[in-house]
Amino acid sequence: MDYTKRMDALRSQIDRDLQTLCRDKEPSSLYEPMQYLFDSGGKRIRPLLLILSCEAVGGAVRDCLDAALAVELLHTFTLVHDDMMDHDDLRRGHETVHRKWDEATAILTGDGLVTLAYQTLLKTTHLQIQEILKSFTDGLLVLCEGQAMDKEFEDRSGISLDDYNRMIYQKTGKLIEVSCEIGAILGDASAKEKTALKEFGKNLGLAFQIQDDMLDILSHESVLGKPIGSDLVENKKTYLTVHFYTNGSASQIDRFNACIHKKVLEPEDIQVIRDIYEETGTLESSRQCIQNLISEALRHLEGIKPNESGEHLKQFSLQLRDRVS
Amino acid sequence: MDYTKRMDALRSQIDRDLQTLCRDKEPSSLYEPMQYLFDSGGKRIRPLLLILSCEAVGGAVRDCLDAALAVELLHTFTLVHDDMMDHDDLRRGHETVHRKWDEATAILTGDGLVTLAYQTLLKTTHLQIQEILKSFTDGLLVLCEGQAMDKEFEDRSGISLDDYNRMIYQKTGKLIEVSCEIGAILGDASAKEKTALKEFGKNLGLAFQIQDDMLDILSHESVLGKPIGSDLVENKKTYLTVHFYTNGSASQIDRFNACIHKKVLEPEDIQVIRDIYEETGTLESSRQCIQNLISEALRHLEGIKPNESGEHLKQFSLQLRDRVS
Repeated sequence: MDYTKRMDALRSQIDRDLQTLCRDKEPSSLYEPMQYLFDSGGKRIRPLLLILSCEAVGGAVRDCLDAALAVELLHTFTLVHDDMMDHDDLRRGHETVHRKWDEATAILTGDGLVTLAYQTLLKTTHLQIQEILKSFTDGLLVLCEGQAMDKEFEDRSGISLDDYNRMIYQKTGKLIEVSCEIGAILGDASAKEKTALKEFGKNLGLAFQIQDDMLDILSHESVLGKPIGSDLVENKKTYLTVHFYTNGSASQIDRFNACIHKKVLEPEDIQVIRDIYEETGTLESSRQCIQNLISEALRHLEGIKPNESGEHLKQFSLQLRDRVS
Repeated sequence: MDYTKRMDALRSQIDRDLQTLCRDKEPSSLYEPMQYLFDSGGKRIRPLLLILSCEAVGGAVRDCLDAALAVELLHTFTLVHDDMMDHDDLRRGHETVHRKWDEATAILTGDGLVTLAYQTLLKTTHLQIQEILKSFTDGLLVLCEGQAMDKEFEDRSGISLDDYNRMIYQKTGKLIEVSCEIGAILGDASAKEKTALKEFGKNLGLAFQIQDDMLDILSHESVLGKPIGSDLVENKKTYLTVHFYTNGSASQIDRFNACIHKKVLEPEDIQVIRDIYEETGTLESSRQCIQNLISEALRHLEGIKPNESGEHLKQFSLQLRDRVS
C-alpha cells in the first residue's frame, strides 16, 4: 500500500482505539481530561514505529495493537506531567491539562494514563509478555531519570554534549527504542533483528529530539502549537544551547544572554538568536548531527530482510527528519 | 513464632529491602526523595498482609517478597501524589515531598515510585504472573478513580453512606484486597481460598479507612504525625461527616459548621466537634461499623485451613482495629 495512505489508516485506527478507552467512564474528573488529550491530536510516532517494527519482521497489526496503544498512553502520561513541571501553558495548540483544569487534575490524569498504559499492554497475548513488560517498565524508569536530569540541568551551566546526549537518550530516545523493540518481540524477531530495530529506534529517537530542539527556535507558533523559544525561556539544555555555549565567542554569548533573560521572547529576539546560531555554525552542526543519526538508524534497518513495512520505516525516518512541527 | 516478633522481623526485612532499591542511584533529585520516604517509616500494612496471605495458604516469603515490596511502593506513590493534591504539609511526622523539595520533585518521585513498583513486581517468577499484574493494575486504576471521586466529593454536599462506601472501597479497600489476592495467588491458593482472602482484605481495608477517619479527629498530632482535623479543613467526606450530616439536627449542624469553616482548627474546636459527634451517635456508629467489618473479615478467614500465618492475620486485624495512629 502507498506509504501516506497506510500511515493515515494506522493513525486513524490508533486515534479511534484511544478514544474508546475512556468513553462513558466515570468519574468524569479523571476521564474527561484523558478524552481531551486524545482529541488534541499528536503524531503517534511511537505506536506507528511499534507496528511497523512488528510488521517489518513478519508480524501483524492485530498482534501488537494493544502494545502500540500502550506506548502512546505512556507518552501522553509523560506530556501531562512534564508540562506541569515545566509550567507550559500550551501543547499541540491546546491548553495543557493543569491550565485547563488544575494541578490536582493533571497529576491524577497522568497517573490514570500510566495505569491505562499497563492495562492495555496486559491485554497482549505473547509467550514473552514478561520480557515485554520489563522492557516497557525499564524504559519508563529511564524516562523518569531523564526528566529528572533535564530539570537538574536547568539550574546548571557547563553541560557538555556528552551530558546532553545521555539526557536526551533517557528522556526521548529510550521510549522510541523500546517501542521498536516491543514491536520486534511481538513480531517474533530473531535476536539479530531485535537488536537492529532497537538500534534503529534509538538513533531515530535522538535525531527526533535534536530536531525538536531546532524547531523550538526555527518554527512558527501557529505550526508548533506553543510559543517559539520556550526551551530558552525555561533554560532547557538543547543541542543548540550546548553547542553554542561551547563554540560561541564572549561577545556572541553576551548578545545571546541579553536576549534570553526575558520571560517572553519577542520576534526580534528570536531573529537575533537565529542569526547568532547561524554565525557560530550551531544550526549547521545540528542539521549534520541529525543527518548522521538518521543515516545510522537506516544502516541498522539493513539488518532486517526487506519488506513493505521496512520500507515504510525508512520513509518515516526521512519524514521525521524533514518535519516542521 | 510469637506474633509480635514475627511482625517485627518481617517489617525489618521490608524496610531493609526498600532502602536498597534506590541506594547509590542517580540522578539524586529522583532517588533522594524516595530514600527519604523509605526512611520516614510506615506501618507496611499492605506488604505484611500480602506475605501473611501467601503463607496462610502454604506459600513462602521468598515467593512473594518482591510482590510485597511492590504493593508498598505503589502505596507510597499514592501518598506522595495525594499529599500534593490535598496540599498536606506533614505525613508520618515528616514534611511531605512537595513541601521539603518542590512540586516538580513530588510529581516525578511519584512517577518513579509507580515504575519501581512494576519493576519490582516483575522480578516475581510465577506461572500466573500476567494475572497478578492485571490484578495489580486494575487495582491501581480503581485507586485513581477513588482518588478522583474523593476530590469530587470535596466540592459536593449530600454524599450518602453508599457513595462514601463506594469511594473508600476504591481509594483504600481495593489495594488491600489486591495485596491479599496477590499473596494468595503466589501461595498457589485454591479458587475458594483466593476468594476468601480477597474478601478478608476488602473488609479489613474498609474498616481500616473508617478507623483512619476516626483518628483524624480522635488522635493527637504527636501520635498521628499530622494536624488533627485535617480531613474537616479539606472538606473530605469521612464516615463521620457523612453520618453526622445525615443524622444531626439543624442546630447541631450549625454549631458544627461554625467550627469547621476555619483554616486551622483550635483544640477547643476539636472538642466541640468530638462532643457533637458523641451526641449524634456518630462515634458509636463508626465503632460499630468497624467492628462489623472486622467480624466479616474474620469470617472469611475461616474459609482457609488454619495455620500460624492465618492466626497472625487474625491478630493483625484486631490490632488494626485497635490502633491509635
